[in-house]
Amino acid sequence: MSKFNDSITPRDVDFAKWYTDIVRAANLADYTSVKGCIAIEPNGYAIWEKMQSILDKKFKELGHVNCQMPLLIPENLFGQEKDLIEGFAPELAWVTEVGDKKMEERFAVRSTSETLFCDYYKKHITSYKDLPKLYNQWCNVFRYEKETRPFLRSREFLWQEGHTIHETAEEAIKEAEQMAEVYRWFHHEVLAIPSIIGRKTEKEKFAGAEFTITNEDLMYNGVCLQDGTSHYFGQKFAKAYDVKCTTKDNKEDYVYQTSWGTTTRLIGGLIMVHSDDYGLVLPPRIAPRQVVIIPIGEDEEVISLSNSYKDLLLNNDITTYIDDSNKSPGFKFAEAEVNGIPVRIEIGKRDLDNNVITVARRDTREKITISKDTEIVSYIKELLDTIQNDMYERAKKRRDDLTFEAHNMKEMEDILNTQPGFIHAMWCGDENCENKIKEIKGCKSRCITDDEAIDDVCVCCGKKAKHHVIWGIQY
Amino acid sequence: MSKFNDSITPRDVDFAKWYTDIVRAANLADYTSVKGCIAIEPNGYAIWEKMQSILDKKFKELGHVNCQMPLLIPENLFGQEKDLIEGFAPELAWVTEVGDKKMEERFAVRSTSETLFCDYYKKHITSYKDLPKLYNQWCNVFRYEKETRPFLRSREFLWQEGHTIHETAEEAIKEAEQMAEVYRWFHHEVLAIPSIIGRKTEKEKFAGAEFTITNEDLMYNGVCLQDGTSHYFGQKFAKAYDVKCTTKDNKEDYVYQTSWGTTTRLIGGLIMVHSDDYGLVLPPRIAPRQVVIIPIGEDEEVISLSNSYKDLLLNNDITTYIDDSNKSPGFKFAEAEVNGIPVRIEIGKRDLDNNVITVARRDTREKITISKDTEIVSYIKELLDTIQNDMYERAKKRRDDLTFEAHNMKEMEDILNTQPGFIHAMWCGDENCENKIKEIKGCKSRCITDDEAIDDVCVCCGKKAKHHVIWGIQY
Repeated sequence: MSKFNDSITPRDVDFAKWYTDIVRAANLADYTSVKGCIAIEPNGYAIWEKMQSILDKKFKELGHVNCQMPLLIPENLFGQEKDLIEGFAPELAWVTEVGDKKMEERFAVRSTSETLFCDYYKKHITSYKDLPKLYNQWCNVFRYEKETRPFLRSREFLWQEGHTIHETAEEAIKEAEQMAEVYRWFHHEVLAIPSIIGRKTEKEKFAGAEFTITNEDLMYNGVCLQDGTSHYFGQKFAKAYDVKCTTKDNKEDYVYQTSWGTTTRLIGGLIMVHSDDYGLVLPPRIAPRQVVIIPIGEDEEVISLSNSYKDLLLNNDITTYIDDSNKSPGFKFAEAEVNGIPVRIEIGKRDLDNNVITVARRDTREKITISKDTEIVSYIKELLDTIQNDMYERAKKRRDDLTFEAHNMKEMEDILNTQPGFIHAMWCGDENCENKIKEIKGCKSRCITDDEAIDDVCVCCGKKAKHHVIWGIQY
Repeated sequence: MSKFNDSITPRDVDFAKWYTDIVRAANLADYTSVKGCIAIEPNGYAIWEKMQSILDKKFKELGHVNCQMPLLIPENLFGQEKDLIEGFAPELAWVTEVGDKKMEERFAVRSTSETLFCDYYKKHITSYKDLPKLYNQWCNVFRYEKETRPFLRSREFLWQEGHTIHETAEEAIKEAEQMAEVYRWFHHEVLAIPSIIGRKTEKEKFAGAEFTITNEDLMYNGVCLQDGTSHYFGQKFAKAYDVKCTTKDNKEDYVYQTSWGTTTRLIGGLIMVHSDDYGLVLPPRIAPRQVVIIPIGEDEEVISLSNSYKDLLLNNDITTYIDDSNKSPGFKFAEAEVNGIPVRIEIGKRDLDNNVITVARRDTREKITISKDTEIVSYIKELLDTIQNDMYERAKKRRDDLTFEAHNMKEMEDILNTQPGFIHAMWCGDENCENKIKEIKGCKSRCITDDEAIDDVCVCCGKKAKHHVIWGIQY
């Protein structure tokens, strides 16, 4: 029907191609002459801005403040915490020259900023009265990757990284758990993505962390995506970077620390959970533009009703625009569809003569005829809520349909060879078993969902199991 | 009186030290272990966030959209426009290694992104119907500087860079002028800084631009600061990067281009125009927190009135907080002062018994006693407007007092050796004269304010003058 659909490979034919076709057709991002790096285009960046505004508000409600640390990290500073530098070493990009001069020391382009926050906090706290410090920054980071997939994997990406220090372990653990829960809330309530939350195994946790809590999402094709992780460091970094202060009992002690982050990768997750063969589908709560009004023809009543709807909706905080461009109605419908505008209102003279207008849902592509005298604000508000809920329920059903149980390696292999998804299987806690499972199509532990009530054996070695674990193939 | 004042060197004793003392005392920024780079602390970053929100809203009202280009620029891409690479070469930081491997090509950490926008636009336009493209990005840039002064000069800084392409020269010139005017509006109406706007000379314009329009601010000590520049490139970059499309007459032509930017340097300007020996002074329209309420004692009526004022003011979009921390009232007053909170409301039992409360203006340090039954919202609204206007008028008077006229080199020297400021002097247009003037304390042309009605001679060579020029010593 339009240039848009023609350019999108059907999802069930070639999922990877479908994904990049959506990214291009909806003008979300594009490859650049800078190998491994993408340009985030206005349509994609607007989604990131909306994510930022919602998360930032929540962070601030919980007492966090924003700051900005340097982009470059001197090699000797980065190297002070051994696990961190070892974990990140192969991915670090190094600045070594300025103008035409060699520098005395190499500087890493930040891949994460624990080092700089520790270095800062060390100078700025003397007493427990200075605690907690609840800092966050929105910035770019660089990790050298071999593959590039827009949003999912690129050498540079945008994120926020929260870094907090606390007087006690209890308080820091509570913070790490709280922020993982904020991410869970954001996935479920805003992105309509039913993430599963749990702890990473020792093998999969963040380099240097005592534990990592993760949000794991299941994509339409059964592949897993991790985003929204929260780490508890105990005193490990504090000891490596000498971050200490006087305690209530007038002794000296190291602080307890957390960090937590989400990235532009979430945009990739949104696409792969919700979109279809007609383009992007966005849950209303994250859509930068929620309603498009398309007047058909130039009849005065059509134009005047379009404008009055727009004003009414905008005044009620529903992001609305009129597409009065010089294109055919069919083209405009398809364009709104490919861009994932949740609701489209079509207003035409013939419909008005029958006292009706047409409302189209992007998620189901259903067209609804309603009286033009409908109380439009409450109608659209309710419709947006319905779409949000329906999208969540559909994603949850898909996730549940693609969540399997395995009790032995044969079952594990069968699942992974047929239709990957979340695989729920017991595990003894031995890294050797994790490694053996990884040999099947690179399947990794996603997270430990529960340690209790285990009455089963390890899916790999058959010994007594210690943990409920979700496994899967990841992006 | 408090730890704050003790730590601030008086402005008239040592201006440079006063400046860094304010930056530290108000917790705006600090030096880091990364040489030449600063950490922007929460109080400083909150000012940047408010600047972003006001400018971003204005940009969007004018049809601009945000995006994000890569941080790193391949050497061969950067090198395609000769003036640009020559202008920036000595300041560029180069990434040459990844992990422990040497890269095949060097990548510059972006110092400005004309190259990347050209490279992007080239791929994404085919016809004049695709024009204009009005893109902007908020990001970090890196320029290797020898000196470091928080906000004024640091190797990394934050900014926004708008990059637009147009069908005609007229339209692009109009855009460049419009954005310089947006910056002028922002300086005058929001920052209460009476900037002077004008064109840069050929010598001082941006590398590769046909012309640059600048906003020039005068600091309290008579030194000049440039921020808010807008460049018109004609087709220069378009030709270097092959950015062309079909025109209305079905021919092919290169696009016309602009770029424009403001940086975190504006925070430095705010400090050096408005602050005093007691700390930061912020114009209400840019202050992240506009009103602090300080309850004195724990009397029930005191607490209840504090809360009711806070709610009333917040509900009317006046950013208000209560300082109910465990510190003495005197400490709280001084802390609010050093942090530049425009209005402080002090509520104490004894005052309430007399049916009054005390309101203190940060800019004049005046204390005003008002009836507790005053309609607080309209009173505070009016007071904030008064403070904003008074701060602008004081800055304008200071600027005017420090604006001098010179008709020959002797007068120029006398002014620069006595009290620098804006120096208005005629110029013939010859770069040799500009170079000779620069020999006096590094004095540079700030901008050409007018080309017309010249009935005078060049301040340097005595030949017929072509331009009214403002000269000065810069940061």
